[in-house]
Amino acid sequence: MKKRLTLIKIGGNVIDHEAQLGQFLGDFARMEGFKILVHGGGKTATKLAADLNHRAVMVDGRRITDKKTLDIVTMVYAGLINKNLVAQLQKQQCNAVGLSGADGNFIRAEKRPVKEIDYGYVGDIVHNSVDASGLSAFLDAGFVPIFSAITHDGHGQLLNTNADTIAASLAVALSASFETRLVYCFEKKGVLADINDDRSLVKEIREAQFLPLQESGVVAGGMIPKLHNAFQAINQGVKEVIIGQATDLSQIDTGLFGTRIIK
Amino acid sequence: MKKRLTLIKIGGNVIDHEAQLGQFLGDFARMEGFKILVHGGGKTATKLAADLNHRAVMVDGRRITDKKTLDIVTMVYAGLINKNLVAQLQKQQCNAVGLSGADGNFIRAEKRPVKEIDYGYVGDIVHNSVDASGLSAFLDAGFVPIFSAITHDGHGQLLNTNADTIAASLAVALSASFETRLVYCFEKKGVLADINDDRSLVKEIREAQFLPLQESGVVAGGMIPKLHNAFQAINQGVKEVIIGQATDLSQIDTGLFGTRIIK
Repeated sequence: MKKRLTLIKIGGNVIDHEAQLGQFLGDFARMEGFKILVHGGGKTATKLAADLNHRAVMVDGRRITDKKTLDIVTMVYAGLINKNLVAQLQKQQCNAVGLSGADGNFIRAEKRPVKEIDYGYVGDIVHNSVDASGLSAFLDAGFVPIFSAITHDGHGQLLNTNADTIAASLAVALSASFETRLVYCFEKKGVLADINDDRSLVKEIREAQFLPLQESGVVAGGMIPKLHNAFQAINQGVKEVIIGQATDLSQIDTGLFGTRIIK
Repeated sequence: MKKRLTLIKIGGNVIDHEAQLGQFLGDFARMEGFKILVHGGGKTATKLAADLNHRAVMVDGRRITDKKTLDIVTMVYAGLINKNLVAQLQKQQCNAVGLSGADGNFIRAEKRPVKEIDYGYVGDIVHNSVDASGLSAFLDAGFVPIFSAITHDGHGQLLNTNADTIAASLAVALSASFETRLVYCFEKKGVLADINDDRSLVKEIREAQFLPLQESGVVAGGMIPKLHNAFQAINQGVKEVIIGQATDLSQIDTGLFGTRIIK
């Protein structure tokens, strides 16, 4: 029987909220079995850019990662946030090791090709580039990887990479060796039929419902790429994908937690 | 027979000099046997503090690590510099993994006790706190640890820690399992009898010469604590300690490299 691995991604809003983050990290530290955390950035990088008078470059409404922005996100994601998460988890006897995709060459990406827009130093993960055997050795040695959303291209260049996609790519790659569960944690209960009503949690979404839910507006904004990642993961061997509230993580083994993504 | 481990510390001046750093990293990547790199900070943290209008707090001529300075060095050392070093080494097929002392709980420190001066978030390494068996497992798995000069106290607090001391503590702790060589690399050929004359390299220093060399002014400034660390290391089981030029690393196995510290 395969060993169980839980991959959790936490979003920026949770990272920015001290009490929510504290509760989440406690629950994460206590969670049994193999586990990996992937974290996004939160507002600190935006604030640092503002403090440095560095204007975010926008093209057609899209944020561009220029050289200075790459340095800022590397400092904030891989430095400040990552190491503070590691220290908080170590305090709770969780043997965390903070990583980027460059470390151990665990995740390789390529600079997004320039088509209509040059996104700058944004990386798209190279298919099959996740080093599942290296990561398995890491997990077997008792380490808990904490990934920031920075990768590299293998030619010395760091790249800003979407944290949801990193989590999904890790989950897919590790599904050959582990029974893998992918959990997107954020500040809401899950996908809500009415975004203002926590009781309107959608318990399950099947792929056939994805398009109708977009058309009805229940699934919108940042939830669309998240669900897209979720369905890709579930179709590529990930056993379970759940979208739920970071502060409810202790309930993950009950049927009460979040929205379940089903093939 | 014990396996050989080379621990190298590079200083800030090398990190700030692109050509020197490039040559050093190439030589480091090609160096055979087990290896660990410890790096200091360079001027980037000072520049970032200036850009953020954060004045270094000085007490009696000593720099204080207040909360904001700690955040800045965590971003620059553990984020920007560490991850760029890792990406550069990965480019050269060196399987680098960037770490702080918090990662894997590899190095624990305690906040320096307040006596005449409150140094703020500065950490002194806790005696025997280096996890030599965890690090050995890491090395045996083929990873090359790249340590930034950030540690933690085990209670969730990151701490700014002297890179020379980190290198010496790692070397001492790993000497039980490895034949350990500690190399302090900087921008000079080694200890120079005349600081302006590269040909005046002092080839060896015995502990009995340390005080006379200080009195004559040959050993001064930052070289004093470096040599202090060096003698401590050699007296605690480290096989060899050398102080030499970063760009000469390829000559380390010849007798021509740097100043050798001898019991």
